[in-house]
Amino acid sequence: MARVYNFSAGPAVLPLEALQEAQADLVDYKGSGMSVMEMSHRGKEYDAIHNEAMSNLKELLGLGDDYEVLFVQGGASMQFAFIPLNFLGAGQTADYINSGSWGAAAIKQAQLVGNVNIVANTQKDIPTRMPNLSEINWTPGAAYSHITTNETIAGTQLKEIPETGSPLIGDMSSDILSRPRDYSKFAMFYAGAQKNLGPSGLAMVAIRKDFAEKGNVTIPTMFRYQTYVEKQSLYNTPPCFGIYMLCLTTRWMKNKGMENLFKLNREKAAKIYEVIDNSDFYRGTALKECRSDMNITFRLPTEELETLFVKQAGENGMKQLKGHRSVGGIRASIYNAFPMAGVDTLVDFMKDFEKRNG
Amino acid sequence: MARVYNFSAGPAVLPLEALQEAQADLVDYKGSGMSVMEMSHRGKEYDAIHNEAMSNLKELLGLGDDYEVLFVQGGASMQFAFIPLNFLGAGQTADYINSGSWGAAAIKQAQLVGNVNIVANTQKDIPTRMPNLSEINWTPGAAYSHITTNETIAGTQLKEIPETGSPLIGDMSSDILSRPRDYSKFAMFYAGAQKNLGPSGLAMVAIRKDFAEKGNVTIPTMFRYQTYVEKQSLYNTPPCFGIYMLCLTTRWMKNKGMENLFKLNREKAAKIYEVIDNSDFYRGTALKECRSDMNITFRLPTEELETLFVKQAGENGMKQLKGHRSVGGIRASIYNAFPMAGVDTLVDFMKDFEKRNG
Repeated sequence: MARVYNFSAGPAVLPLEALQEAQADLVDYKGSGMSVMEMSHRGKEYDAIHNEAMSNLKELLGLGDDYEVLFVQGGASMQFAFIPLNFLGAGQTADYINSGSWGAAAIKQAQLVGNVNIVANTQKDIPTRMPNLSEINWTPGAAYSHITTNETIAGTQLKEIPETGSPLIGDMSSDILSRPRDYSKFAMFYAGAQKNLGPSGLAMVAIRKDFAEKGNVTIPTMFRYQTYVEKQSLYNTPPCFGIYMLCLTTRWMKNKGMENLFKLNREKAAKIYEVIDNSDFYRGTALKECRSDMNITFRLPTEELETLFVKQAGENGMKQLKGHRSVGGIRASIYNAFPMAGVDTLVDFMKDFEKRNG
Repeated sequence: MARVYNFSAGPAVLPLEALQEAQADLVDYKGSGMSVMEMSHRGKEYDAIHNEAMSNLKELLGLGDDYEVLFVQGGASMQFAFIPLNFLGAGQTADYINSGSWGAAAIKQAQLVGNVNIVANTQKDIPTRMPNLSEINWTPGAAYSHITTNETIAGTQLKEIPETGSPLIGDMSSDILSRPRDYSKFAMFYAGAQKNLGPSGLAMVAIRKDFAEKGNVTIPTMFRYQTYVEKQSLYNTPPCFGIYMLCLTTRWMKNKGMENLFKLNREKAAKIYEVIDNSDFYRGTALKECRSDMNITFRLPTEELETLFVKQAGENGMKQLKGHRSVGGIRASIYNAFPMAGVDTLVDFMKDFEKRNG
């Protein structure tokens, strides 16, 4: 077996140890005689997985008992609709930052439900960047304020969490648990699993219990956060195998140690940015102080060279480096599970490619 | 490895061949150097899986190009909300049959959205049964009519599909592709995957294109069937691994042959019902002409004997036979992937248990 270095922005690389354990137990989970995929979600084997996944997340996120961790289907895109349906009532306003494609996508769905105030907009800025938080005028008495902590396509990241004066909601899909954050600043935050937490088909939501209780009670049961809180995300059949993979991934994180992972993430990103900064050949697309540690976006002098770069990297075991189809260029996504050896391989390749083509 | 006989009502037994193939390829899918769980949903490897899953379903269901097969997250419970949001406008009425717990659950969500006419109600009938279709007065000009073809908890099944005079929508979660059906009678039908199609975390929706086009355009994008039609269920990241397992399961069905599977399903159910009918010890809970071929529900003389039955069956490798917590008793779910050898083992055990305790 030859594993490649997988730079995909999501679904993305998972810890090899987690995949190997899932593989060993796939047909017969720990002597139960069945796969995790075949178990009743009300049985004791699955229950242990479900509870461990939740408690691992609460521990890793440093959340107290005033928060509940939920498992919801539909990815972050479903959350874009659930949030205003739960919390944006008639006559209310919600503040949103439009920091890029994902901020814009969240706004579009909220506008279908209620009144949105876009308090900052850097979606079209070149170089890509996050807004200057100190210049934002948040709406007094807003129903909530919504931010995107990492823009996967633009390759930008909020380094600080703003004080907004209203319940803060964060889309942290592409940088959750990748760097130190004070999660207690949020009334709610969420993440599609397929970047740092597990496979696609599952979003993690963490919500303060008193905030969930304020949600609209007239919407369908499956849309209400309070349903997931009250039923421990077992109101209906959950995505059991995805939660199992998240359980194995969070167990891997616990074993690695978060401080260690945070340090590795900084080092991994710094190595690639260093090549970009020391080169006139590569050009980073994000403003330096807004650069993401998770998604590193850069351009080459021509599109032809970018195509050649992706092709030759692929031939050398580095896959999925092509930038998002909406912006082009190169994107190296290096989530928690992406190994340092892959970064070193890319760095060497980048230097060599520049020598040959610069 | 000792596989058990898994009578779970869902998540349920999957074809052993599908699990074994998934296991072999879990860490390195066909030499790609990565797991299916790690692949971009926009890449060519995943694209081939996605398209094969869709085309297998269309072929097995016998659908023409006037239908589209969609993959939606959230299970059947999410569909209970999406259906009225798409198709039940202000001033309109939708007809629903309440044939049991799942019919009732669909109705509850529709009533949160619009006006529902319950045209038949057998939810509380003992013995459990489906309504007599010939006695139903369907509402002229209804927005749509909704039926549940198999009630998993009650162990009942509609043997015929009614003519309702309005677009017919069917929840077929627990008996899709298990018996001959004329699927072209439906404007739309859907099934949570975790019974006959794959793992949980995924629902299959089949919808007539001209019906999808009539859906409400003002609701959030992720709720609109037309979004999934237009984007081939790739508007956002789909539950890739679940779709992969569905692909393997439908491939298994194609290899087995549907006529063969239908025949086996009839024979499997008949063997268990024969023991019940030839006994004063076991008592079927469903009216004979409404009995499900998928979920066989029965009682023993006392709850103590039922507990002993489940315990001793478990000790003999027959698992998850306990009836749903809301009704008690015994439930043997024998979906497509459940092997005949498991039915024979249960039948022998039932006869022996009666001898020892009757």
